[in-house]
Amino acid sequence: MVHNFNAGPSILPKEVFQQAAEAVLNYNNSGLSILEIGHRTATFQAVMDEVRALVRELMLLDDQHEVLFLHGGASTQFMQVPMNLLDEKETAAYADTGVWGIKAIKEAKLFGKVEVVCSGKESNYTIIPKDFAVPNDAAYFHITTNNTIYGSQWQKIPNTSIPLVGDMSSDIFSRVIDFNSFDLIYAGAQKNMGPAGVNLVVVNKNILGKIKRAIPTIMDYRNHIKEGSMMNTPPVFAVYVCMLTLRWLKALGGVAAVEKLNQAKAACLYKEIDENPLFTGTVIKEDRSNMNVCFVMNDPSLEETFLSFTKERNIVGIKGHRLVGGFRASLYNALPLSSVDVLVNTMKEFALTHA
Amino acid sequence: MVHNFNAGPSILPKEVFQQAAEAVLNYNNSGLSILEIGHRTATFQAVMDEVRALVRELMLLDDQHEVLFLHGGASTQFMQVPMNLLDEKETAAYADTGVWGIKAIKEAKLFGKVEVVCSGKESNYTIIPKDFAVPNDAAYFHITTNNTIYGSQWQKIPNTSIPLVGDMSSDIFSRVIDFNSFDLIYAGAQKNMGPAGVNLVVVNKNILGKIKRAIPTIMDYRNHIKEGSMMNTPPVFAVYVCMLTLRWLKALGGVAAVEKLNQAKAACLYKEIDENPLFTGTVIKEDRSNMNVCFVMNDPSLEETFLSFTKERNIVGIKGHRLVGGFRASLYNALPLSSVDVLVNTMKEFALTHA
Repeated sequence: MVHNFNAGPSILPKEVFQQAAEAVLNYNNSGLSILEIGHRTATFQAVMDEVRALVRELMLLDDQHEVLFLHGGASTQFMQVPMNLLDEKETAAYADTGVWGIKAIKEAKLFGKVEVVCSGKESNYTIIPKDFAVPNDAAYFHITTNNTIYGSQWQKIPNTSIPLVGDMSSDIFSRVIDFNSFDLIYAGAQKNMGPAGVNLVVVNKNILGKIKRAIPTIMDYRNHIKEGSMMNTPPVFAVYVCMLTLRWLKALGGVAAVEKLNQAKAACLYKEIDENPLFTGTVIKEDRSNMNVCFVMNDPSLEETFLSFTKERNIVGIKGHRLVGGFRASLYNALPLSSVDVLVNTMKEFALTHA
Repeated sequence: MVHNFNAGPSILPKEVFQQAAEAVLNYNNSGLSILEIGHRTATFQAVMDEVRALVRELMLLDDQHEVLFLHGGASTQFMQVPMNLLDEKETAAYADTGVWGIKAIKEAKLFGKVEVVCSGKESNYTIIPKDFAVPNDAAYFHITTNNTIYGSQWQKIPNTSIPLVGDMSSDIFSRVIDFNSFDLIYAGAQKNMGPAGVNLVVVNKNILGKIKRAIPTIMDYRNHIKEGSMMNTPPVFAVYVCMLTLRWLKALGGVAAVEKLNQAKAACLYKEIDENPLFTGTVIKEDRSNMNVCFVMNDPSLEETFLSFTKERNIVGIKGHRLVGGFRASLYNALPLSSVDVLVNTMKEFALTHA
């Protein structure tokens, strides 16, 4: 068995892979592959209806929030959010907690003004900023709830009087938060939801339609809401796999249940990092992510040896992002605790001979 | 066996479904699903390299043309093309050959001026316009090479002195044309290439960078070229299935070989439409599409009965688009001649009792 700690695209439940493979061969005994079914058929409409309902149910969304599955990934949303929400002369507030936040800021500047209200840059993004003020007259406040590259996570969601926008690509459906406190949430599917190639967007419809800019048809959230997320041909297979994953999550007990598992997995790995003399966690304890656990070796010259050691034990995907080096173990919803145990035991074993 | 005449998403080769299903379970014996493999791995880089090389080879592209696989479908390109090619005060020339052309025109108007140089509207889009002039100073000329809804197709690609842009979503890789005569080609994958959720874009790099507008990072073709179509997480599975389909096409003998098959399939069905007293083709003969064959019943009251009759014979997807009614049989690359035979025989059989 391979232990898949990939940061994304990443592990999904085994039964999802099995069901998806069956659907590629013969969807629901229709004699057709899920890949060759028209999106305007009752067959696919049922998939789209179910996945949107599952999101609503699992996130406990109120009636003001709409659920969309759109083409692309978070990089598309970096542009689409300000295009829909930020007028040319207005200011949007952004938190800079690393690469993805910076990319979002860059795109927003094409559409209006940006005020970076806080930044973890001086701490090399090993912290989540705490003391900052968000201007009351900004169009919205944007945060990246979990920072995949650095392994930091907003443990407390900021309270704002203005619309709150969250890039939740790497921690959506992983923990209980008040999703309704966000006015717009987006997440590329390829961590906790499904394959790469689809975006979940949850939007409070009341924040739309406030700007003067003419928005291209495919970029206007209102058009997608009106057409029930079926304005153009959706990424059918990706949406279908999201439905399977969210069915699995619901059967598991939903977000609260998976949060407990995620906490247990993260606690287990952080404990080893803190106790093992060879390793050090890179993020301050209170801001550590339960999704992406980043750590380095105290003796960097041992890193290649350790990486080979883990590979022999079928551990994949733990090399850190090229920007920060070291190691990163991603513990997404579908990763079993047993894989974390294998990693922890491998670290212990390695310490026996190298500490 | 089901005979799948869906207009898109639509039939792909059976072996592609088999290989794709296997990859969802266990990709190349890696112990991992294709859905959980990181896009920055050598494993996926090989897929992206191969699919881009296959496009280049099958289309006989010269060195000036770049091959990209981007998120979204043609509806995204309706916006992305003018965003990259049309300055605010410039004019783009468009051919109006139906719904998809009209949608492309609508988006272009958000970025500059549009001159509709020809239109099939007065003929209810049953023809491809012939006599028209394209202004020499327009930024580009845009055509929809095949019109899925009406079943019309440009049999002769217009010769222009300005950059030529083609929406080839529904006839890409189906016939031999000089692809290098186009400066930009785009095609949603879900007809002749793969599953919904990815766009093929072929662009002559010399036409880029001529406008003043600031283009969002994810929308600028130049960024995707620079990053080898891997600027952000691509739709991994959709790209992989495109690779499988293009491998199949190459093994079949490439575009020239499939064109012969497509001509045979279309000739067979059009012959029956022209000979059968119950049916009439809707497009004038010289502009008929070899991909989407549209026809009506001379007695419309028989349409429901005929539809039920075909369903009993496992024929699916032949109901015409809601805008035009009647019937539409899509004969994409992967549809076997035997399915066309079944449809033709069904039409003959129906005529025996209803003519």
